[in-house]
Amino acid sequence: MAYKLYYWDGIPGRGEFVRLVLEETGADYVDIAREPDRQGRGTTAMLKLLKDGDGATIPFAPPFLKDGDLLISHVANILFYLGPKLGLAPEEEDLRFVANGLQLTITDFVAEIHDTHHPIGVSLYYEDQKPEASRRSSDFLSERLPKFLGYFERVLRQNPKGAGHIVGGRLSYVDLSLFQLVEGLRYAFPKAMRSYEENIPGVIALHDAVAERPNIRNYLASDRRLSFNEAGIFRHYPELDRAS
Amino acid sequence: MAYKLYYWDGIPGRGEFVRLVLEETGADYVDIAREPDRQGRGTTAMLKLLKDGDGATIPFAPPFLKDGDLLISHVANILFYLGPKLGLAPEEEDLRFVANGLQLTITDFVAEIHDTHHPIGVSLYYEDQKPEASRRSSDFLSERLPKFLGYFERVLRQNPKGAGHIVGGRLSYVDLSLFQLVEGLRYAFPKAMRSYEENIPGVIALHDAVAERPNIRNYLASDRRLSFNEAGIFRHYPELDRAS
Repeated sequence: MAYKLYYWDGIPGRGEFVRLVLEETGADYVDIAREPDRQGRGTTAMLKLLKDGDGATIPFAPPFLKDGDLLISHVANILFYLGPKLGLAPEEEDLRFVANGLQLTITDFVAEIHDTHHPIGVSLYYEDQKPEASRRSSDFLSERLPKFLGYFERVLRQNPKGAGHIVGGRLSYVDLSLFQLVEGLRYAFPKAMRSYEENIPGVIALHDAVAERPNIRNYLASDRRLSFNEAGIFRHYPELDRAS
Repeated sequence: MAYKLYYWDGIPGRGEFVRLVLEETGADYVDIAREPDRQGRGTTAMLKLLKDGDGATIPFAPPFLKDGDLLISHVANILFYLGPKLGLAPEEEDLRFVANGLQLTITDFVAEIHDTHHPIGVSLYYEDQKPEASRRSSDFLSERLPKFLGYFERVLRQNPKGAGHIVGGRLSYVDLSLFQLVEGLRYAFPKAMRSYEENIPGVIALHDAVAERPNIRNYLASDRRLSFNEAGIFRHYPELDRAS
């Protein structure tokens, strides 16, 4: 039975970290909210499920994944569940917890990236919090971006199985998420990334290797791959960007 | 061999969600950073480990747990690992992913609670971001606190095994984390909680039941239990609090 992915239509957002895993492995899946509104599909079906008064496992927010009767929320949790089934998790059980820790570090980083344009509240528009966004972005680019990316570079270099992957000796879902991080940051903060990337050659080489994988290349060229835009997590507001 | 917990001394913070699990189950553990600085203990030892140039699994930040050679970062990941070993996870594997999704919702909520007093940057003092903190807290109390707590109340009520636990039919680590959430929110936002708690009778009943458990009661009365204060996640700044 096909996996059902539930995420907002029109933005790559957090759903994209899950899509990359499904696409790389050629898994059978339906991107529910991007389908027409009928037969349990479409955004209407997703919102209905979130309001379900009987469901025992209603999630707080998209993305979530349905596998048969099981409903799983949160990117890191979905990937922890899918990874071993789809061959994108380390084989050693111990390393799976290391992978999950790295994925949760990416989760934290993504939340901070989101808050560069929404430091006051998700219920407000960016236009209602521009001075605060400017201050937060400045702190983000000088302190947080180097700290997070520098950390991933260091973990790559210290991987005893080689710097080709962030954990273990073969491709994992965390590698795919790092690819997406670099893509999103290049879109949102092109000036900062141009000046900073020379400090993280390992992360950039990993990004490039993922982009060259046949299934990923086909996916990126397809219309299933959504473009970044100013409704998502990675937003390009030139006034928030500067050399890092 | 005893578990080694690594977390900043002097604040309950994120480490407390792990401590509650270790205390409830009477697990053998050492709270490394709260020990004197010698023989691999103390804050010095924790900082040394974070800078380790050889370690394959260096975490980004505390808390982390060491079990033998395995180093595990992030509260939700640590609890996902410890839960089944200590009998505080659901027995059914599917429900373990539901528990993890709920714990990650708590993680998101805790990050938003932290950002009420640090909306601009963790590298700045609260005093350097007071106007922004005031605006963010106002949004938090009117929008986010009711949304998150209302969600947990709904999940409790819809639990097919009964509203005594948030997931499954017996105590899990998620119940203990919800107890800590209520404790922290009462400390940080007493006015808001006094006016809002009548909307979440199930969550409050769960909190009270956890507080009455013998091991938890002993722990809360011991000097191992740290007090909330204005260096942690849950901070009481009266100017940020108001009836919700």
